[in-house]
Amino acid sequence: MTYRVGVIGAGQLARMLTPVAVNLDIELKVFAEAEGASAKLATTVVGDYTDAEQVLEFARGVDVITFDHEHVPQPVLQRLVEAGVAVRPGPQALRFAQDKIEMRQKVAELGLGQPEWTRATTADEVQAFVDLHGGRAIVKTPRGGYDGHGVRLVSSGSEVADWLAAEVLDQVGGALLVEEAVDFRRELSQQVARRPSGEMRAWALAASEQVGGVCAEVIAPAPDTTDDVAEQARHIATTIAEAVEVTGALAVELFETNDGRVLVNELAMRPHNSGHWSMDGAVTGQFEQHLRAVLDLPLGDPEARQPVTVMVNVLGGHDGTEHEQALVRALAEVPQAKVHWYGKSYRPGRKMGHVNVTGFDLVETRDAARDAARALGSEVVDSLSV
Amino acid sequence: MTYRVGVIGAGQLARMLTPVAVNLDIELKVFAEAEGASAKLATTVVGDYTDAEQVLEFARGVDVITFDHEHVPQPVLQRLVEAGVAVRPGPQALRFAQDKIEMRQKVAELGLGQPEWTRATTADEVQAFVDLHGGRAIVKTPRGGYDGHGVRLVSSGSEVADWLAAEVLDQVGGALLVEEAVDFRRELSQQVARRPSGEMRAWALAASEQVGGVCAEVIAPAPDTTDDVAEQARHIATTIAEAVEVTGALAVELFETNDGRVLVNELAMRPHNSGHWSMDGAVTGQFEQHLRAVLDLPLGDPEARQPVTVMVNVLGGHDGTEHEQALVRALAEVPQAKVHWYGKSYRPGRKMGHVNVTGFDLVETRDAARDAARALGSEVVDSLSV
Repeated sequence: MTYRVGVIGAGQLARMLTPVAVNLDIELKVFAEAEGASAKLATTVVGDYTDAEQVLEFARGVDVITFDHEHVPQPVLQRLVEAGVAVRPGPQALRFAQDKIEMRQKVAELGLGQPEWTRATTADEVQAFVDLHGGRAIVKTPRGGYDGHGVRLVSSGSEVADWLAAEVLDQVGGALLVEEAVDFRRELSQQVARRPSGEMRAWALAASEQVGGVCAEVIAPAPDTTDDVAEQARHIATTIAEAVEVTGALAVELFETNDGRVLVNELAMRPHNSGHWSMDGAVTGQFEQHLRAVLDLPLGDPEARQPVTVMVNVLGGHDGTEHEQALVRALAEVPQAKVHWYGKSYRPGRKMGHVNVTGFDLVETRDAARDAARALGSEVVDSLSV
Repeated sequence: MTYRVGVIGAGQLARMLTPVAVNLDIELKVFAEAEGASAKLATTVVGDYTDAEQVLEFARGVDVITFDHEHVPQPVLQRLVEAGVAVRPGPQALRFAQDKIEMRQKVAELGLGQPEWTRATTADEVQAFVDLHGGRAIVKTPRGGYDGHGVRLVSSGSEVADWLAAEVLDQVGGALLVEEAVDFRRELSQQVARRPSGEMRAWALAASEQVGGVCAEVIAPAPDTTDDVAEQARHIATTIAEAVEVTGALAVELFETNDGRVLVNELAMRPHNSGHWSMDGAVTGQFEQHLRAVLDLPLGDPEARQPVTVMVNVLGGHDGTEHEQALVRALAEVPQAKVHWYGKSYRPGRKMGHVNVTGFDLVETRDAARDAARALGSEVVDSLSV
């Protein structure tokens, strides 16, 4: 008998579960939206994840259902649970990754640090918050956003008039989330994994840099981190994981303020871009740990293998023969680079793959990872801070 | 366009190419002897590798042909080359991994250290060699042996009478290889990878221990190794790789004698059990490097990630539910263990999987790897030396 894991969604996150599934002899099945998805190497069923009957049929062939994305509607999740399917993370946890207003309410209830926020259904309400917070605010659609989609920095309520139209508002959760534009020193990410029996393991705190709202570079462990900041980050992630009984990987994206406070930005309950470094930089990477956690297997050691790991996303790049030439350049220039390529067709700025480099010296390691990503055609490397 | 690699054979070596093929977005196809092989996750064609037409048909769908084993007959290999197929390693190299007498002749010609040896077709010839070498000798069938099969320690020519029967002799290469039973300090393995353009990279020298003729444990780098021994090993492997123009991974199994000489024992021209440590212990593991080499891509950094890596084979073990229970024990007891499971059905002593542990302290690391292999049901861990 082999463990069988079903993954809803077949993007690069599902794809990156396949190597560790091979190592541990776990059978992986993916429920894809279309043929030819990034995770096409796993056994693939094509279907509609908003259709409970189709998902239920898929679930019958596996021991546990987990996710490549957080878009499966609550009624579908509930239906699976009622049918006795092991859904990990479960709907009671996933709702806080699916709806940013519910997340803000839960974080408040848990007494954890976060930006000031409110919910708004009119431009006047947005404007009132803007006026109270230095003339600007971040407005987010609570549901359905990702990678900077559904997020705007505004200085007036009228800038989100389109989202306030009744038919749009209804789709994104019934109200907009309005947040204080935090003046942060940097963005951090604390990842933990938790299994149903309660065991939890935390990876090193990572520092991430976004370009155009999209994760571009991650350094782990986060350099120049005080014990107090590390402790706050760890406390926030473990508190949330326990409170909502997350199973699998949880990434808490955080702001570190200039005065040393740590505030919750977003939650993701699945392997996350800010944890790709651990594939090569930790004894147990996030994809292996996620599979172990959702199968309720003992968790692995998340310890870093080397003093520093830098992950650089390849955003944009090339297709076809040009990609092959770029790959040759990257491998030749940076022999220590671990290249992870997602097998997706090119679009400007699209996440085509990422590069990990581990080492001893932060600057050398970071430059090597950036060189490899640049050789692979990443369009944003030169926008990263020095 | 994606690189496409065809692998003849679908055992665990082909299987372990799949994770790195996913990472680099290389399409892997395997040519299996039967359905349900260890590498079943790759695209699989079932056929007979001794049938040139079938292999040629398989080769038409890929950019390069490589191997999970060394049993493809020379006429089939030649036929592929004549048809313009990229065969890596090529027949001119593979013959020295396929026929141990040809290998001995080549090693002699290259002036590299090896045990004394002769070829024999009669019991009297074996006996004469035994008499001259302290009353014992190792007799090997030059072709078709593996993992201790086709190897006997004898003290009389009559002990290989069955192999000297004309119909057997004909199958194993026309003569037996008779070797001095070397009084060695330990067994070593030097692995290198070479690409068609000539670039070559060497991994750390590894020390291996066999139980019952089967590799049971590998430590890398080999502890307590003099610079001179390391230099001899490196010289032997690179000399052979260049002389016969190996492409892909080459493992040279070696004896280190008590007086510090390094002698060639066997050659393998593919990923090899003595190199499994590098999957987790080196920046570039042997499976990734083999794919890069046969595709003539720039080779990766083979540097060790940590001071010591220990690989312990799981020989024997369990099936089904008992395997699941054993896996839970192994993961719980050794959270830093990297378990590689081959998905094969149980037979006593069969290579079911292996465990890698990397660390700083040799004894701790070795004990952890052994504990995990023992928990997984390996039947030989307690036979290893202390």
